[in-house]
Amino acid sequence: MTQDTPHLVVVGAGFGGLELVARLAGAPLRITIIDQRNHHLFQPLLYQVATTSLATSEIAWPIRHLVHRRKDVVTLLGAVVGVDAVERKVLLEDGGAVDFDFLALATGARHAYFGHDEWEPFAPGLKTLEDATDIRRRILLAFEHAERESDAERRAALLTFVIIGAGPTGVELAGTIVELAHETIRDDFRHFDPRATRVVLIEAGQRILPGFAEDLALYAHRALERLGVEIELGRAVSQCSADGVLFGETTLAAKTILWAAGVQASAAAQWLAAPTDRAGRILVAPDLSVPGHDNIFALGDTVSIAAPDGRPVPGIAPAAKQQGTYVAAIIRARLAGAPSPGPFRYRHAGSLATIGKRAAIIDFGWIKLRGRIAWWMWGVAHIYFLIGLRNRLSVAMSWLWIYLSGQRSARLITQGPEEERR
Amino acid sequence: MTQDTPHLVVVGAGFGGLELVARLAGAPLRITIIDQRNHHLFQPLLYQVATTSLATSEIAWPIRHLVHRRKDVVTLLGAVVGVDAVERKVLLEDGGAVDFDFLALATGARHAYFGHDEWEPFAPGLKTLEDATDIRRRILLAFEHAERESDAERRAALLTFVIIGAGPTGVELAGTIVELAHETIRDDFRHFDPRATRVVLIEAGQRILPGFAEDLALYAHRALERLGVEIELGRAVSQCSADGVLFGETTLAAKTILWAAGVQASAAAQWLAAPTDRAGRILVAPDLSVPGHDNIFALGDTVSIAAPDGRPVPGIAPAAKQQGTYVAAIIRARLAGAPSPGPFRYRHAGSLATIGKRAAIIDFGWIKLRGRIAWWMWGVAHIYFLIGLRNRLSVAMSWLWIYLSGQRSARLITQGPEEERR
Repeated sequence: MTQDTPHLVVVGAGFGGLELVARLAGAPLRITIIDQRNHHLFQPLLYQVATTSLATSEIAWPIRHLVHRRKDVVTLLGAVVGVDAVERKVLLEDGGAVDFDFLALATGARHAYFGHDEWEPFAPGLKTLEDATDIRRRILLAFEHAERESDAERRAALLTFVIIGAGPTGVELAGTIVELAHETIRDDFRHFDPRATRVVLIEAGQRILPGFAEDLALYAHRALERLGVEIELGRAVSQCSADGVLFGETTLAAKTILWAAGVQASAAAQWLAAPTDRAGRILVAPDLSVPGHDNIFALGDTVSIAAPDGRPVPGIAPAAKQQGTYVAAIIRARLAGAPSPGPFRYRHAGSLATIGKRAAIIDFGWIKLRGRIAWWMWGVAHIYFLIGLRNRLSVAMSWLWIYLSGQRSARLITQGPEEERR
Repeated sequence: MTQDTPHLVVVGAGFGGLELVARLAGAPLRITIIDQRNHHLFQPLLYQVATTSLATSEIAWPIRHLVHRRKDVVTLLGAVVGVDAVERKVLLEDGGAVDFDFLALATGARHAYFGHDEWEPFAPGLKTLEDATDIRRRILLAFEHAERESDAERRAALLTFVIIGAGPTGVELAGTIVELAHETIRDDFRHFDPRATRVVLIEAGQRILPGFAEDLALYAHRALERLGVEIELGRAVSQCSADGVLFGETTLAAKTILWAAGVQASAAAQWLAAPTDRAGRILVAPDLSVPGHDNIFALGDTVSIAAPDGRPVPGIAPAAKQQGTYVAAIIRARLAGAPSPGPFRYRHAGSLATIGKRAAIIDFGWIKLRGRIAWWMWGVAHIYFLIGLRNRLSVAMSWLWIYLSGQRSARLITQGPEEERR
């Protein structure tokens, strides 16, 4: 392999980027991975870090270690701020530049506030490990402050947790927080009863889990209510502050608000002035190339593309991985001078969501599962998809412990400004 | 138990404070624990978090959960800023106050720079979980930056790690960092060889580990050198900056400097205008009461007191626990109207330090152990002293994994300002 070997730059080491790199093992390529974090994050379990069930290191791995056996791969920690498509250079924040022959943009998404960015300080979203430890700190501090609050009304606001948005993340956060309050910390306080904690899930639509079949969503709705979650449908939140939320005509006093309502793609489209949908996702060609740039591909949460059934490909890990596999095949064909494979076709394997630690729903399309058996399948599947035996063992043990004892082991208030930790 | 029941306030839930509370189970007392953190920290293993071997949640537990079965104990998260000894009130930062009949100050210590506080940004010390994740970030970022550095001299500075102070913490940091560089990340980089990493342990005194017998310290010295640590004795550091250190006439270019050279007691002495030693530790009476306040006790790193052999009681967990046990006995005697036990007498059980993952030294006084057998004893002892089966299992698994594979699972760069993470 020499400097003349074609060079692929992959920006972003999420599910899509890493799958692409894995599928190119042995190809006549040099590969550089650039990410602004040193770790790949298993986002499907991030809500478990935010709710004290898992430690940060159980769902994150150093990117460079994941590819340490691949001598054809260089990993760089750095923030990309632009692409020079003419000169074929990726531009880095620190002024550096990296040449490419092929470029793959797998830069993911952030949460979005639909024009209300001023809500972010009051209603943090969940995309990074820092988001998760921030949310964990807020949840735990609310209980700590409640223990010292003598005013009943203020204490009630401290013990009210609002989750905005009832997709899988909102549902999973709500189910876990109510279990944390009603079970894990049940005996830990002296001045209030944690079972008085209210968890309110607010959804603007007419039902929770719009991506799931209606009967499954209804089952999840009832299961959440049985756990103790209050569900408010059909009214959008129109105000968020340090004191609570306004939805419809209802004001709800709540000191902790979590945002699970919407995402916005990263800035990748702007680097190439590419056409996007409303969420900033690149409207890619059928072969996942960026229009006008046949050597630049985009994948995962960065792109907007339709599935064969006409519905949008969902922003989930299996979709990103399929796109990584597909782009690898395109690049291999190009390198070999072979004809390109046909257009990308998404195959939906299924949708999953958990409700607390005893129930889940799985929608495979051809079969629907729910309840305890679905929860076990969900657990086994997630342990299987974790990277490395070490993490599988560790997460399995953490879950077994929670399952048997109700105790969660990562109840740490850390990493805020000094005055925010107490 | 009524409001007339005497009230003990314990400030600080470290080893001393928690032992005191544990030993007072069943006593006719109300107890309030106040700590500015929500977690008790197992400080002897903090260096393992700083060096990516353990996750934060493996060595920290929510204080209130540790005492959740004790209905006589209230736990408050809060920062104490003063004591009104006449009115018998503990004053909190947020303006609150807590009445007491008995008060125990177990507020610990911070690292100290001997009049050079301006060194702190360049040479962080290790006392809290945040310190540990900060040091972890610095160590991992140095390697990341080295991967992108083309200038040989600057790269060498990035790959030079200086540890100032060769007590147990300095020795343990040095041994683990050199293993991390030479073993764990050996195959992870493409533009430099991690085995070129230099770890330099600088000690002003004439030998490392002054608290240990000379032959054991000499063994540790040789074991560290075999691992690859460079040891510099007899010259104090006189300058610290972002570029490196000056010790004696030697300038050493180093981008990562860690401080393990000295501690300063917390502000507790100032709250009572109590007499202190040079490190700010209260010169307590033989019964650990603060002079002039027979209902106020101090323990752990907050106090300065001599052992029966005339040497100072060391600032280690067993000493703090013995003091907790002793103060509990004093308070029980007072409550019962019985005569006080005699003065506090420290019994030194032994000193331990590890050198990397295969050797340790243990100085019991009557017997001295070193090498692999000492390392296993150290490991078993620390797992035994961890709190709770869950953490024992988890840490045992983490260590077994490191021992067998050399891989460390908490290699995360997190929690710095956004621009510092890359």
